[in-house]
Amino acid sequence: MKHLLSIADLTRGSAVELLDEAERFEQALLGREVHKLPTLRGRTVMTVFFENSTRTRVSFEVAGKWMSADVINVSASSSSVSKGESLRDTAMTLRAAGADALIVRHPASGAAHQIASWTAGHDGGPAIINAGDGTHEHPTQALLDALTLRQRLGDIEGKRIAIVGDILHSRVARSNALLLSMLGAEVVLVAPPTLLPVGASSWPVTVAHSFDAELPGLDAVLMLRVQAERMNGGFFPSQREYSINYGLSEKRLALLPEHAVVLHPGPMLRGMEIASAVADSPRAAVLQQVTNGVHMRMAVLFRLLVGAEEVAG
Amino acid sequence: MKHLLSIADLTRGSAVELLDEAERFEQALLGREVHKLPTLRGRTVMTVFFENSTRTRVSFEVAGKWMSADVINVSASSSSVSKGESLRDTAMTLRAAGADALIVRHPASGAAHQIASWTAGHDGGPAIINAGDGTHEHPTQALLDALTLRQRLGDIEGKRIAIVGDILHSRVARSNALLLSMLGAEVVLVAPPTLLPVGASSWPVTVAHSFDAELPGLDAVLMLRVQAERMNGGFFPSQREYSINYGLSEKRLALLPEHAVVLHPGPMLRGMEIASAVADSPRAAVLQQVTNGVHMRMAVLFRLLVGAEEVAG
Amino acid sequence: MKHLLSIADLTRGSAVELLDEAERFEQALLGREVHKLPTLRGRTVMTVFFENSTRTRVSFEVAGKWMSADVINVSASSSSVSKGESLRDTAMTLRAAGADALIVRHPASGAAHQIASWTAGHDGGPAIINAGDGTHEHPTQALLDALTLRQRLGDIEGKRIAIVGDILHSRVARSNALLLSMLGAEVVLVAPPTLLPVGASSWPVTVAHSFDAELPGLDAVLMLRVQAERMNGGFFPSQREYSINYGLSEKRLALLPEHAVVLHPGPMLRGMEIASAVADSPRAAVLQQVTNGVHMRMAVLFRLLVGAEEVAG
Repeated sequence: MKHLLSIADLTRGSAVELLDEAERFEQALLGREVHKLPTLRGRTVMTVFFENSTRTRVSFEVAGKWMSADVINVSASSSSVSKGESLRDTAMTLRAAGADALIVRHPASGAAHQIASWTAGHDGGPAIINAGDGTHEHPTQALLDALTLRQRLGDIEGKRIAIVGDILHSRVARSNALLLSMLGAEVVLVAPPTLLPVGASSWPVTVAHSFDAELPGLDAVLMLRVQAERMNGGFFPSQREYSINYGLSEKRLALLPEHAVVLHPGPMLRGMEIASAVADSPRAAVLQQVTNGVHMRMAVLFRLLVGAEEVAG
Repeated sequence: MKHLLSIADLTRGSAVELLDEAERFEQALLGREVHKLPTLRGRTVMTVFFENSTRTRVSFEVAGKWMSADVINVSASSSSVSKGESLRDTAMTLRAAGADALIVRHPASGAAHQIASWTAGHDGGPAIINAGDGTHEHPTQALLDALTLRQRLGDIEGKRIAIVGDILHSRVARSNALLLSMLGAEVVLVAPPTLLPVGASSWPVTVAHSFDAELPGLDAVLMLRVQAERMNGGFFPSQREYSINYGLSEKRLALLPEHAVVLHPGPMLRGMEIASAVADSPRAAVLQQVTNGVHMRMAVLFRLLVGAEEVAG
Repeated sequence: MKHLLSIADLTRGSAVELLDEAERFEQALLGREVHKLPTLRGRTVMTVFFENSTRTRVSFEVAGKWMSADVINVSASSSSVSKGESLRDTAMTLRAAGADALIVRHPASGAAHQIASWTAGHDGGPAIINAGDGTHEHPTQALLDALTLRQRLGDIEGKRIAIVGDILHSRVARSNALLLSMLGAEVVLVAPPTLLPVGASSWPVTVAHSFDAELPGLDAVLMLRVQAERMNGGFFPSQREYSINYGLSEKRLALLPEHAVVLHPGPMLRGMEIASAVADSPRAAVLQQVTNGVHMRMAVLFRLLVGAEEVAG
């Protein structure tokens, strides 16, 4: 594996290996005050964010620094992009400046793939990690969600998992649908027809429109962040309609089986897509997702930069 | 001591210990070209600034890096706050992402306290350092000021120290009034009635309105940064009135005893609250304050993250 | 050498030493996966950018981190400047906060010189590196260009090198003209009269107005970034005129001798000052310039912070 651009870069086997490796990193750090491994010493990891994201950038920065990498942050607002440079030239410049990995967040679907195709040279070029491209994919989010589900449910195989809400605009939904299906889950998308992508019919999932009808049969619910500015009625449901039909209220939480777990990638709009009491309930795994995010990004950086043959820690 | 949120977290004894420890760090680095101690290796320190502040952020970043901590900067403009996330969720996310310390600058008074109450869990949670919250407190600034005064005056006990200007809007004034009183100084607030906080009558200080009358009896003058945009007449004095009545001119400097020292937390508005010749005079300790700031923040991070039982260096 | 403010700080000998040292750093890192030398461990390098520049800031940050320095980024937007602090006070504050080197980018010509004169104290003060000041100089860019030319052409002595385009607004042009002349090149400025600085007549160069007439006799062409917003006709040529007369088209590339090399400091406006096919041609050295930039900045930081007596690596 050279890059992590989308779930299609993974097999079921390599995905499980990444989950295992993330847990090895968790174990290696557990209970230690000193969070520092020499694993990536002398490697240069650049976060290249054309959209803001505290949590994803910080997660990768912590992961890199805990493995002793040099981490350099590049943000679009201060970048040459504002001087008219092309994305290709920006990427090639960062490659030439010594990047071993580029972690890319970009508003355009396909941006990370493009960068990977541009920067690949006869001597390899940097590893590209897609940290969210438009409405397309966000594979490390899906991996950390899978890790959280495996920890909470014991296994993912055969579990029934709903992804709920604004599927249309969500790269998290797409990556999760593909990864969780690959790992043997039954994935059901719960959304109004106008918030389903046209291509969802080709995904390995089923579709439902009634959240309430699904709840009793679920092992897990993945809520999505709502981009509230889109919920202004007309083609899309209004915020109020959305919240009523697709928000995870306390009443809906009570309809879930006792063992079922609730995930949300954050940032949460409490009271909109998730009730505050649900978000803070022990059945929600939101903060466990964040912690797993660091370990998962350590695993991904390790696999891409050091390779599969060596053992973490 | 788990957090440093306000001067009330300190006793006279623990405050003096911090001053001593800062001086031990100064001694440990003195004359060395290599500014690097292994003290905080593998600890993760995050600066979380919801207001800009070069000098405070840089000071903490230098302090952390000189002790080998991993330092990660989070600023509000690029944070999830702009996506509607609550302060509590932001803080909990940074905790879950591995922060051992959160250094918080926020425009709302009490923000650091809130964060400390939210992030405290059964396994402790990160140390919270208040790096300025609204008009409330800025304890590390008061500590570095106290260190500077002790170095310049030999002792703080029994010294008469004026804090001058816009007390109302100044967290620096409040933290200094409380700390310097605790350390045995006689603190006098010099300000127009409209720039005194209502609660100042309960502080362990006296109040004076004539700067000139105070000058001959002072051992030290702490000037404050004026937020010039507030000085537009009406309720508050105009910029011109403020400068005439509360600015530290060369003429006023001449009224101070020979041994008295002038402090300013910066950034200075030269010609407004302090004359340029005064700021550059050897009797001003402005740059010594900056240097002490790094050592004091090393001491605070060390105490909070490693504890009192070990010795610095 | 205490600072690097302009090419006048260099002699031919010291410039050649820097080129040699940059190549020693390149050799020291070549083929290694681990890019980490202990050279600047415990030294504090601050980038202080009052204008955005991804490529220059990243280049210095990589250079510093590969030599184990603590690198701290300060940008104008988050700086005390926005609170009315003077440039002198900002610089003195960063000195007092522990900077061993300040890498300064500023829109005003002479800013780095000013800072160097302010921060020099009886104990030396930090090394100041001019990373671009207004329309004045950008010496590390000229050094990395010279390194690239030496690698491509074997030697700079006696080579005929054109600097083309908006000389008037270009600090890169000025630094290159001075350095390349010092190293024995024949430098010719190719620009319309309105885009030549008044003082260019005192530079050790010749001036030409026809790009086409020059091409067959050149060993190298240094293109400049066009600030397109200035190219609005009237006093200056229009964008179209500029591109036609001073853009490096494929047709013009064909007029160059086979061995000639094309440089551009980036970011490039493809189709404006340089045709896309030219930029991507093997005769363009744009990405080699970027890579050389890291090694050259390692050499400069090393020379300024450690000195000439020790050997790199």
